[in-house]
Amino acid sequence: MSTDLARRFPQNPLLCPGDVRPSRPDWQVVCLLNPGAFRWNGRIGLIVRVAERPPQQPGFISLPTLTENGEARVLVFRRDDPKLDASDPRVLCYDGVHYLTTLSHLRLFASTDGTNFAPAGGDLFLWGHGAAETFGIEDCRVARIGDTFELTYTAVSPNGVAVGRRSTTDWKNFRERGLIFPPHNKDCALFEEQIGGMYYALHRPSSPEIGGNFIWLARSPDLQHWGSHVCLARTQPGGWDSARIGAGAAPIKTSRGWLVVYHGADAANRYCLGALLLALDDPARVLARTREPIMQPSADYEKNGFFGQVIFTNGQILDGDTLTIYYGAADTVICGATFSVNEILAQCRE
Amino acid sequence: MSTDLARRFPQNPLLCPGDVRPSRPDWQVVCLLNPGAFRWNGRIGLIVRVAERPPQQPGFISLPTLTENGEARVLVFRRDDPKLDASDPRVLCYDGVHYLTTLSHLRLFASTDGTNFAPAGGDLFLWGHGAAETFGIEDCRVARIGDTFELTYTAVSPNGVAVGRRSTTDWKNFRERGLIFPPHNKDCALFEEQIGGMYYALHRPSSPEIGGNFIWLARSPDLQHWGSHVCLARTQPGGWDSARIGAGAAPIKTSRGWLVVYHGADAANRYCLGALLLALDDPARVLARTREPIMQPSADYEKNGFFGQVIFTNGQILDGDTLTIYYGAADTVICGATFSVNEILAQCRE
Repeated sequence: MSTDLARRFPQNPLLCPGDVRPSRPDWQVVCLLNPGAFRWNGRIGLIVRVAERPPQQPGFISLPTLTENGEARVLVFRRDDPKLDASDPRVLCYDGVHYLTTLSHLRLFASTDGTNFAPAGGDLFLWGHGAAETFGIEDCRVARIGDTFELTYTAVSPNGVAVGRRSTTDWKNFRERGLIFPPHNKDCALFEEQIGGMYYALHRPSSPEIGGNFIWLARSPDLQHWGSHVCLARTQPGGWDSARIGAGAAPIKTSRGWLVVYHGADAANRYCLGALLLALDDPARVLARTREPIMQPSADYEKNGFFGQVIFTNGQILDGDTLTIYYGAADTVICGATFSVNEILAQCRE
Repeated sequence: MSTDLARRFPQNPLLCPGDVRPSRPDWQVVCLLNPGAFRWNGRIGLIVRVAERPPQQPGFISLPTLTENGEARVLVFRRDDPKLDASDPRVLCYDGVHYLTTLSHLRLFASTDGTNFAPAGGDLFLWGHGAAETFGIEDCRVARIGDTFELTYTAVSPNGVAVGRRSTTDWKNFRERGLIFPPHNKDCALFEEQIGGMYYALHRPSSPEIGGNFIWLARSPDLQHWGSHVCLARTQPGGWDSARIGAGAAPIKTSRGWLVVYHGADAANRYCLGALLLALDDPARVLARTREPIMQPSADYEKNGFFGQVIFTNGQILDGDTLTIYYGAADTVICGATFSVNEILAQCRE
């Protein structure tokens, strides 16, 4: 039984690596990934992760990083070095130390119809800054809280993978607020309104031993300082979401509860989407969860690419019952699909 | 060159597993570990981690856990089960899932002279509560902030290893405040006064990939919600603190800066003590660090035990230039040693 509730855009993929000019002439855009999405001034904005690498020479792997001052620095490894493990196209391990094979920054695109996106805001829109972002910034979620857009994203450095925060009201000036969740953490989705006078966030800590890759909930008086952490949802042994789960964009307020679209991956790193339903007055209480994925890799552009069998979302636009999910497909291209919120809710079981 | 600055108490060990009555008649106290220390009503209190296990039958391993309601529940594994990895005496792995081999709670001891400690406050002083503590509570630090004692401790459950917080003013009534740092995190030491109107904490997140076991600094308006995380100190490749480092008790205010005693371990899990010096007005700025350990396992009770070659501290008492460090030795017994603060400062190099 197929439970795929997605109506994919016939225009997919909406954006491809070739559509994007590299940030420096000799670098190559390898992948576009995992866009945040938002409405602003009558348009739909996507803030896309652009993953680049420097030119590769035969027999060597060249890795891009940043200095703490934000300047590019390339590391070179011999492919035949016995200390090198390059079996994962995303992460390289040398002598027990891990590096990313690409360096990501964020770039802005805008559309009036939600399917045709044009570059906006320049080629180097948001770039890693400081010691916590020397391996780049990734997978930006956008929450609108009052007049402010709150950006929460993955900040990567040799110190670890953590959650950074930047704020803007005009998409030109950004206030950098540092790390709001320490390593190892990703997939931070802010609720767009307060509940009982407090802000809430979903986040996804990971553990080297005891625990897993689960979705947690935290609480804050001010969006910057977070505590009272509780584990909300765990991976499901043997299921499509057995290895890791993480929230998508901001939870959607429905009459039945907060609807959270999340990604789940199995041990083979196949990424699908599912959903959770949380109590309106107490988001620590899980009311229901989808048993089967609401969307799974089936289109060619989802099955094949830099890292195939991946559907990953951190951006969505709601219009009545219609939820447009923007997603990274196969860690390579940007796609879109629409869902009925009520159809997703109908799949959430207690 | 020995750089051991410790003057060990001749009375060591001060407390042994046999000094402590198990929490239920058929259980065995396996280890006493890692006491927090504090002054109160003219006495010195130690809040000791007591690690217990149920009776063991030949051919089986019995593991103690708690239900979410705080009731004991024993899990039993066959020793010859091929899915079992019992190579680490502290952590068992079955079919890829990790369990602790012992269940820890916290027990209170008091002394008028700092060396002779008697039980205080009952056999079951502080016990794990709720879903975040079903594998027990460990390694409690005590910070005195105003009239309140703030307890920060390791909370362990299948959801992960995190930092819990409880507060008391009378050591009888405790306010449970849940988790203040999500997994994987330990070794949380609160500063005992505000700096620039904010509270600060040292903590030790760990990463499954990219990053390590480093000491981080966080900031809070209220001790419960934490943010603006920065990595303060990393492990030193090839050194005595190459594999993991973590803060001891609350930083000590000196004229030269905040003095932090920390533990460091190498790849062979040999735990020593070192020190960091942080700027008084900006604890994110590391001024100096000891190159060699200020204390390393040398006494028989430090080299041999449940897990040998371990000196681990999270409790200390300051009296002028004399710093009494209470520590867990070989993960088995509680010991004490005195240091000169000025001698430690003299070992801190830029």
